[in-house]
Amino acid sequence: MIFDHKLRLKKLRIELKKLGLSSLLITNETNVRYLSGFRGGDSLVIITPDSQFFLTDSRYTEEAGDSVSGFTVVEVTTSTYDCLGEIVKKNRIKKIGFDSLNLPYEVAKRLAGCIRPARLVPIKNIIENLRAVKDPGEIEAIKRSVNVTGDVLKKAMGKIRPGISEQSISDSIECEFIKRGARIAFETITACGRNCSKPHAHATKDRIASNDVVMLDMGCRLDLYNSDITRMVFIGKVKNKIKEIYGIVKAAQSAEIEKIRPGVKISEIDLAGRGYIARKGYGKFFGHSLGHGIGMDVHEEPSISKKNDNILKSGMVFTVEPAIYLPKLGGVRIEDMVLVTDKGCEILTR
Amino acid sequence: MIFDHKLRLKKLRIELKKLGLSSLLITNETNVRYLSGFRGGDSLVIITPDSQFFLTDSRYTEEAGDSVSGFTVVEVTTSTYDCLGEIVKKNRIKKIGFDSLNLPYEVAKRLAGCIRPARLVPIKNIIENLRAVKDPGEIEAIKRSVNVTGDVLKKAMGKIRPGISEQSISDSIECEFIKRGARIAFETITACGRNCSKPHAHATKDRIASNDVVMLDMGCRLDLYNSDITRMVFIGKVKNKIKEIYGIVKAAQSAEIEKIRPGVKISEIDLAGRGYIARKGYGKFFGHSLGHGIGMDVHEEPSISKKNDNILKSGMVFTVEPAIYLPKLGGVRIEDMVLVTDKGCEILTR
Repeated sequence: MIFDHKLRLKKLRIELKKLGLSSLLITNETNVRYLSGFRGGDSLVIITPDSQFFLTDSRYTEEAGDSVSGFTVVEVTTSTYDCLGEIVKKNRIKKIGFDSLNLPYEVAKRLAGCIRPARLVPIKNIIENLRAVKDPGEIEAIKRSVNVTGDVLKKAMGKIRPGISEQSISDSIECEFIKRGARIAFETITACGRNCSKPHAHATKDRIASNDVVMLDMGCRLDLYNSDITRMVFIGKVKNKIKEIYGIVKAAQSAEIEKIRPGVKISEIDLAGRGYIARKGYGKFFGHSLGHGIGMDVHEEPSISKKNDNILKSGMVFTVEPAIYLPKLGGVRIEDMVLVTDKGCEILTR
Repeated sequence: MIFDHKLRLKKLRIELKKLGLSSLLITNETNVRYLSGFRGGDSLVIITPDSQFFLTDSRYTEEAGDSVSGFTVVEVTTSTYDCLGEIVKKNRIKKIGFDSLNLPYEVAKRLAGCIRPARLVPIKNIIENLRAVKDPGEIEAIKRSVNVTGDVLKKAMGKIRPGISEQSISDSIECEFIKRGARIAFETITACGRNCSKPHAHATKDRIASNDVVMLDMGCRLDLYNSDITRMVFIGKVKNKIKEIYGIVKAAQSAEIEKIRPGVKISEIDLAGRGYIARKGYGKFFGHSLGHGIGMDVHEEPSISKKNDNILKSGMVFTVEPAIYLPKLGGVRIEDMVLVTDKGCEILTR
């Protein structure tokens, strides 16, 4: 897969400039990967006005040399702090941004001491906001990931029948991902009957009954990109209550998806479905936010919540997952992934 | 599995007292799990002089109600910050510790504002240091995890032959873990030939040759506890150079393991093997530290490095993994897990 890392760096420098900065320390593993293409861990990127440095340790030096281009690769032998301090000094950096939602308090404090008289400037979500809008290579990669999840979902649905346990369904889903060169994006949720009232249920040894309902929430990571889908499977005649809330959740999701297009406030998407569910009397049984951006991380920007007043942009990819959970009784969630297009949206999951 | 969460809380309060504190905010997911037994995510624990609170959101309220005992479970509906502020106020807390190596800078700053006039006090590794010494239930759980990894390793070794790809070996290992009710603890490393020079190689489509060498670094998580082992597999006649460094790494590991007993400085364990490798002329080809504590996290305290001057204690569990990596040529790592006993150590991996 070929991604344009140079273009990403260029866009980042433009955003930095808007904040009056020309240097940035990047510590979040996914952000390091996004900018450099490096697939290992425990590495850092430093952007300076004229260059960019990739700091790693001996476990990764050879891999970085092979896979990271356009960066000066530096092997840290003793202290990352000292190494950073030296780069800041040599490049006459006066202030440098850092990801204040990622870097631990203690690390930021120590680092501030090591780069004096230069100054650390807290920055939030600068790369996360770039990542929220996917480039064409990313959209392709996400679609491939979605396809694998779709295939495995179909296979799993064929396997569901009374007598089989939640755990064995989760197990077979996870093996099927591996056979297709993918890995789980998150712990697979297989929940039946009243277990569906827990939004993040762990698969148990409980067996599926006749006239039961099964929630499958699953997704894979393929070539660094994640997918995520939730489907409800009905076996025989399910309770009327469950059928009723299924209809409401389905209609809520349609109302939400209808709203999706560039320029719309993100909170409006959440409120469209939440309002519908509330009007049907189930408002207090839908507690979580409507969805989350997805890409190199399973949960990333944009967060699709009633508190997010940012604007949807073409190229954003996120989940739409309204739900109703009735404690000790059961629940329904329907989750699809959508891509914001120029005029509306494309549902990636079928 | 039954763990004594009450005893853990009691030990934590004793450690807190030594620091002149009686309240603590716990944000690290593994630490929350260690203290409460909760298996979900996105939750917090607050220790106050007379009580302990478990803060979660609607996705986990039902699960927390079922599984967390001895805590007041609080569902956060709007803002975690406000909720924390209220608890601090109601309980008349004047200062509260927080995990400064875990909490992001920005979160600590916002939190400090929300709990005023109470004061946030940065604390490092207080729970990590308790976790470093395993209790009997944990040692049993770790042994079960090691056994599953041992079984799967044996099966994988039977599968290795010329013509098979690194990727297909990793794939089958990961499926075998799932069949045994476990999950990978980390990305399985299967590397052959010169790929072994990368300490953290990713499995590729490269096929094993005749007279080849294969590095398998693998481990599982079973019932929350991790295992981790590295073995070299020789097929046919391997190069003399590889045989030579294998002998050196093996002897270095023996020298290290011989040193392990309560009361010894941790740095001495690292230096024993590192010195041996250096005397044989390969010092600069062993860059990483000797090992890491392992338990609920794959990497935890104690770090077995030349910089760690803390003292070994009975009940600690960690890896011993000396290595020599020759860039573009190949490498050897041997990794075992050991438990510090009253008089020496027990090698958990065979």
